[in-house]
Amino acid sequence: MIPFKLTDEFLEHIETLILDQKDTGLQLLLEEVHYADIAEIVNELNTADATYIIKLLESDKTSDILTELDEDVRESILANLSTKEIAEELDELDTDDAADIVAELPQNIVQEVISELEDREHAKDIVDLLRYDEYSAGGLMAKELVKVNVNWNVLTCVKEMRAQAENVTRVHSIYVVDDEEKLKGRLSLKDLLTTSTKTHIKDVYIPKVDSVSVNEKPEEIAKIMSKYDLEAIPVVDEIGRLVGRITIDDIVDVIKDEADKDYQMAAGISQDVEADDSILDLTKARLPWLILGLFGGVGSATIMGTFEGVIKDHLSLLLFTPLIAAMAGNVGVQSSAIVVQGIANDDLKGSMVNRLIKEILLSALNGTILAIILFCFAWLIEGDVKMALAISISLIAVIIVAGIIGTFVPIFLHKRGIDPAIATGPFITTSNDIFGIIIYFSIAKMFL
Amino acid sequence: MIPFKLTDEFLEHIETLILDQKDTGLQLLLEEVHYADIAEIVNELNTADATYIIKLLESDKTSDILTELDEDVRESILANLSTKEIAEELDELDTDDAADIVAELPQNIVQEVISELEDREHAKDIVDLLRYDEYSAGGLMAKELVKVNVNWNVLTCVKEMRAQAENVTRVHSIYVVDDEEKLKGRLSLKDLLTTSTKTHIKDVYIPKVDSVSVNEKPEEIAKIMSKYDLEAIPVVDEIGRLVGRITIDDIVDVIKDEADKDYQMAAGISQDVEADDSILDLTKARLPWLILGLFGGVGSATIMGTFEGVIKDHLSLLLFTPLIAAMAGNVGVQSSAIVVQGIANDDLKGSMVNRLIKEILLSALNGTILAIILFCFAWLIEGDVKMALAISISLIAVIIVAGIIGTFVPIFLHKRGIDPAIATGPFITTSNDIFGIIIYFSIAKMFL
Repeated sequence: MIPFKLTDEFLEHIETLILDQKDTGLQLLLEEVHYADIAEIVNELNTADATYIIKLLESDKTSDILTELDEDVRESILANLSTKEIAEELDELDTDDAADIVAELPQNIVQEVISELEDREHAKDIVDLLRYDEYSAGGLMAKELVKVNVNWNVLTCVKEMRAQAENVTRVHSIYVVDDEEKLKGRLSLKDLLTTSTKTHIKDVYIPKVDSVSVNEKPEEIAKIMSKYDLEAIPVVDEIGRLVGRITIDDIVDVIKDEADKDYQMAAGISQDVEADDSILDLTKARLPWLILGLFGGVGSATIMGTFEGVIKDHLSLLLFTPLIAAMAGNVGVQSSAIVVQGIANDDLKGSMVNRLIKEILLSALNGTILAIILFCFAWLIEGDVKMALAISISLIAVIIVAGIIGTFVPIFLHKRGIDPAIATGPFITTSNDIFGIIIYFSIAKMFL
Repeated sequence: MIPFKLTDEFLEHIETLILDQKDTGLQLLLEEVHYADIAEIVNELNTADATYIIKLLESDKTSDILTELDEDVRESILANLSTKEIAEELDELDTDDAADIVAELPQNIVQEVISELEDREHAKDIVDLLRYDEYSAGGLMAKELVKVNVNWNVLTCVKEMRAQAENVTRVHSIYVVDDEEKLKGRLSLKDLLTTSTKTHIKDVYIPKVDSVSVNEKPEEIAKIMSKYDLEAIPVVDEIGRLVGRITIDDIVDVIKDEADKDYQMAAGISQDVEADDSILDLTKARLPWLILGLFGGVGSATIMGTFEGVIKDHLSLLLFTPLIAAMAGNVGVQSSAIVVQGIANDDLKGSMVNRLIKEILLSALNGTILAIILFCFAWLIEGDVKMALAISISLIAVIIVAGIIGTFVPIFLHKRGIDPAIATGPFITTSNDIFGIIIYFSIAKMFL
């Protein structure tokens, strides 16, 4: 298949059809387009046009479109819908997606929307989900699942399952519970396809099943599901009762969001922004880190001022400060990135002391190679062996210290329960700039 | 569930059991441990002990362990196994995993291993998969799938499906093909659960199914599967025949690898390394970028030397070079990261000119705010309005140029078919350092 690509022409065509109120034309045109692609189109329309499309199409499709929209676009469309219209959309959605939308609604209309829901079981499930923290298994899970009682026979089981499956978009596993709803195990779909219909559940079910607690954090669930190649995982409450299930598509989103967040953090972007956000939003995300960098630079300038003595006699020392600062920054970012990734992937083993020793050896090796190259250049440019030596030896020291800071800070933050990713990017470059310059001038002072 | 956490004590316990050849103890101990967790243990053992574990356990478990091992560990274990033993492992694996392992084997034993495979159909499928580029849909797909002929009736269909399902770990969709094996559509599992057994296939199948070509790139498949929330996607050859399917667990690995790669690239790490790799491997990945940074620094020093005139009269200009370089670097990284992420997520819309205009406005806004802050500090420190003004105005210019470079370079590389991620990190900081310093001293020269 060729994935849908939204063109300006297509967008204009849609806008013209809306303007001319060609409803049949629009319906025909969008009939074959996937809801995720229609969401892409709607994201680009103004609110009036976007609302027009949502009101025009059938709610089994528009409900899915709504879940895929950018949050601000969805919000302004929903503001144009009546509580009854919103309830119709929610009736079509799985409980997890419906609960996410309800959580975004203005507080004063939530109750009305919920009372308008036609399917009362569905309404109850949505309300249940609202009480969980968005950032937990409870906040990610859906209530739709297929479960059977361990004491049933296969006949009852198949009958019950057929009824349940009507509400479940994708059947992954059939969960087995006891009379108290406690999760006991699972039946695989494969077993279902290959087992005779006369068997008893308790004789065929697999009494082992991975599950997560309702309070588990999304990243942990992502680690478990990707490590053990799971496509769905049941969620249990504090006493082991089956309360929902999480599917891999939601976890794929978690993995992508986590990766995006870490990447932006490393690049000095403090909020989740996209290239197409407004200049104001982008400034809000970028400026704080730039101000940090500015303070660092002012700090560096002030510190350099205190080394007046050695600077006056050896002016060309100053020519190499950008080099020293850049190397300190680069080494720090490399070290912290490796540690942050190690923590994220759970493959950081051994003690902190060992890790620091390794980083020191590594930095000493890199530093020595770089110092030899720098020595040749500095000698060539300055024609002063003593000066070239001072600069090169400083470089080794600066690289080692930068490596230590880059390794230590994220591990330390992680142990304190703070996201180590904040230690990457501008934070580490700025602090390493300052340390680098102090070390550089101190060593130069000793030498010269 | 509490995810398995490998402790030093547990590892030592395993090593002692191996040393004392307590086979039953080992088997009992590892029986309840998931293969992905055993792989974590085996990764930490020496080759002799690792081979001991693989030879001790049953091949239905060890084959899965092998697929999860680090590549170098797997390689050294396989070197200790006979071709017959390797074939036994492969017989247990799905075709995609088996083909991946065969592709890693020394060329001279491949034929022998394949001839030792017991299941000849399986052997044929593995050989088929070997001819695809590792980095394509063909390289990711497995041959195991459930397919039915559009002309069958449901009775034949169910019988055939039961036989096929025996070989398929997870049934996602039932694909419908015509007599020429061309993909026509699918049957959903849900339909299977809820439809009467008397129906004909051609009357119930869904004639629309997403598929990818064998030549499609993994990132594209990842985009398609995550955008459309697919858990499996069929793969078709050049004339539309169904040749395999890709499951979401493989795509989760692709997404994580891509994210890790971009992250490392932004941090100036040029090969895929982990925190626990050897110092030599880590140096190989880190040193090239550091050398680039070093050359940049030497370049900066040389350029600064050419501004001798203005420097002599205004020595304190030099105190602010680390600040200027750092700000140029930070802004460049921010801009390029947002563009690279926009490209990766396919949400970079509009022309390059518009994007550059936006970045210029954004940089001008950020730059002005930062310049005002810097002006106050510089005035305070230096007590010279003209000097403070020169430095602050340079900062605005430097930030705008850094933003333009950070935006332009990745878009340009992407248009040329080069991975834009290489434009992040040290590449952008180093070039921006140099441009920043040229701009800074040029403006200062004009002003002072």
